[in-house]
Amino acid sequence: MEAVRTIRRKRDGFRLDREEIFEFVAGYTRGDIPDYQASALLMAIYFKGLDARETADLTEAILRSGQSVDLSDFPQPKVDKHSTGGVGDKTSLIIAPVAAAGGLVVPMISGRGLGHTGGTLDKLESIPGFRTRLTIDEFRQTLRSTGAGLTGQTDDLAPADRKLYALRDVTATVESIALISASIMGKKLAEGIDALVLDVKVGSGAFMKMADSARELARRMVEIGVECGRRVEALLTDMSQPLGRAVGNALEVIEVLEALKGRGPEDLMEVSRELTARMFVLGRLDSTVEAARARFDKTLASGAALRKFGEIIAAQGGDAGVVEDYTRLPQPRHEESIVAWRDGYVAALEAESIGLASMRLGAGRERLDSVIDPAVGLVFEKKVGDAVAAGERLCALYFNDPSRLPEARETLRSAIQLSAEPVAPPQLILEQVP
Amino acid sequence: MEAVRTIRRKRDGFRLDREEIFEFVAGYTRGDIPDYQASALLMAIYFKGLDARETADLTEAILRSGQSVDLSDFPQPKVDKHSTGGVGDKTSLIIAPVAAAGGLVVPMISGRGLGHTGGTLDKLESIPGFRTRLTIDEFRQTLRSTGAGLTGQTDDLAPADRKLYALRDVTATVESIALISASIMGKKLAEGIDALVLDVKVGSGAFMKMADSARELARRMVEIGVECGRRVEALLTDMSQPLGRAVGNALEVIEVLEALKGRGPEDLMEVSRELTARMFVLGRLDSTVEAARARFDKTLASGAALRKFGEIIAAQGGDAGVVEDYTRLPQPRHEESIVAWRDGYVAALEAESIGLASMRLGAGRERLDSVIDPAVGLVFEKKVGDAVAAGERLCALYFNDPSRLPEARETLRSAIQLSAEPVAPPQLILEQVP
Repeated sequence: MEAVRTIRRKRDGFRLDREEIFEFVAGYTRGDIPDYQASALLMAIYFKGLDARETADLTEAILRSGQSVDLSDFPQPKVDKHSTGGVGDKTSLIIAPVAAAGGLVVPMISGRGLGHTGGTLDKLESIPGFRTRLTIDEFRQTLRSTGAGLTGQTDDLAPADRKLYALRDVTATVESIALISASIMGKKLAEGIDALVLDVKVGSGAFMKMADSARELARRMVEIGVECGRRVEALLTDMSQPLGRAVGNALEVIEVLEALKGRGPEDLMEVSRELTARMFVLGRLDSTVEAARARFDKTLASGAALRKFGEIIAAQGGDAGVVEDYTRLPQPRHEESIVAWRDGYVAALEAESIGLASMRLGAGRERLDSVIDPAVGLVFEKKVGDAVAAGERLCALYFNDPSRLPEARETLRSAIQLSAEPVAPPQLILEQVP
Repeated sequence: MEAVRTIRRKRDGFRLDREEIFEFVAGYTRGDIPDYQASALLMAIYFKGLDARETADLTEAILRSGQSVDLSDFPQPKVDKHSTGGVGDKTSLIIAPVAAAGGLVVPMISGRGLGHTGGTLDKLESIPGFRTRLTIDEFRQTLRSTGAGLTGQTDDLAPADRKLYALRDVTATVESIALISASIMGKKLAEGIDALVLDVKVGSGAFMKMADSARELARRMVEIGVECGRRVEALLTDMSQPLGRAVGNALEVIEVLEALKGRGPEDLMEVSRELTARMFVLGRLDSTVEAARARFDKTLASGAALRKFGEIIAAQGGDAGVVEDYTRLPQPRHEESIVAWRDGYVAALEAESIGLASMRLGAGRERLDSVIDPAVGLVFEKKVGDAVAAGERLCALYFNDPSRLPEARETLRSAIQLSAEPVAPPQLILEQVP
């Protein structure tokens, strides 16, 4: 009878106690509290919210629903970066090797793509042999040997979150800032980190389309960090257009390798650099963001980050030969172009539609059980603000299945706007929280 | 994916289509839509409500989730009465025989008691042999031979309601006027009735403690009747103190038999008479409430109603000998009294606590699986407004298990207030809707 009391109390707008929250989450994880009670509570939370204390309690309850990665025997600072997800967002693949080469331990537990957003694990799996299902022991071993590890959530880590997330997805209770923050932070704290930098994306390609809700989510997650004794900072970054030029798994890995060789697109480099710099500061390797930016630049320029990425690939069973030979990555059979239909300036590359276009080529998942084609995707030759001449290529489409082209092309075309007047490129780093 | 769309639409405050509602209820009844989606929708409805059209659609969807009783071959008007439940509310046992003797067919599908409220089926089952689990065929046969039938809900009638109600109970979604009205009306319309009179109780012993919410519930149910092409009227009646003098199953049957013999307590007779009169009018046996009241009086005075009750008991397998010999009913072993502790007037007999006191003696159910003792309960010798002298008996307690006495007595004692000043008895019939 306790579960129904908890549901009723939240329904009636009362603050739930720490004990109630822990009992509900533990009971649900064990299977003693059925899905139908959990979904009723989630819907009540959707309407009535959770305050900072309740959200922190929920986070801890999720964290304690399973094992944590114990990294207390690592002498280095343990710092991760988490992004709320976007289109062309491959910063994790740059940040992990740079941060590890710069002196941090980076235990990065990542997710997969769904709908218009891509997923770090999917990108990594385009590298032949790369294993993203490490056991906790293997994860620790990779962290020990390279300073970074990139893996998927195991069954043992924060199992309550996996169960709750699956339930939220089918009960229209995903869109709750309290539930989103507790879900993200519960998983991240299970990584055994000292500090965390959050990249909260804002714009059409982001989960949070508006700065207000993104800021609210960022504040909530930073609050949870404080309540749980971790150092947490968030940057709100632009996701109105794709980040970088490539959208699609192997194509993004190539862009990352180019970036680690010093040839990355400006926007991708700026976001990666700002996030990594906060990680160095929170990890107390540097006392100012300026010094931390210099560490980023040096690690990149020295080639240490590129070598580190090769080491990480090798440590996780992947073919490190891809670092120098991109033909070892899956190759698309066909290429098409979208060209400018007038002289002018790129006014918009609407990120959500671009993500969907890439998904339709096969680079993303329509449903959880869709199979990804790692070779396909898009590469933009122009970004918002760039001048274009009629007939110039705006975007290349790479694909294997020609039947997928028409719809993808149509979706992509609808995402692009050209204007006669010059357009300023969007501001990349919008805010810092706190 | 349709179910989650329906949940999301209601969550976001949209009006659900008839088709959406029918698909959800049918899918849930078949088991294609799981409990956890139903409970999320119920909680969204709790917060966002249903309008008149949606409530009528939900009612019809519940009605059509199973069989209905087909009474189209009965030439008489088919009219039922439904009460939202209270303490000492035995009007069904008076109304069914009076209405049937007066010329109506009364297909009464009733429920059981829970907590402080009693249930018609429990009262009837105190009559040795009385069967309350008739098949639809047996129910029709009883209606054919006597004009009335009193049975429990079968698995075939409105199965969606049973499933939804069980779910609401454990997900804190009972207290929604839209859901309550659709649940009641879905079941009632499955009885194959032309018209329905609703007794919406108001006061501490009622589900609706306040007149505002009772009126809202009454209006909602009358609206559903209109939308579904049935004649429906509601009376709001007092449930601040128990109705009549007896609370407890066999004790209430005795009070009913006394009432049918012309010796019923005034309040019980007035409520029964007003409800039955509306049934006669809605059934078009009488064109005015005055004429219908006269029919009630005549049916009672002639002894026709008492004979009819004997017939109904016999038709449903019960011992009709109880009509004349109350000792054939279960007898309690012990009797105790509560006496007035001062001279004065009865100011309150708080119905909910009295229902709980009776439950604690064993007359009611604490949980769904509690076993009832049919012999035990309370009989009030004074009601609100009566003058009392110190030492005069206010209430008799009948019980079998002495260990249950102290708590019941304490609860009962706390429910009684005496005052030095005269107190007016409560108004019995508060409002009529429409």
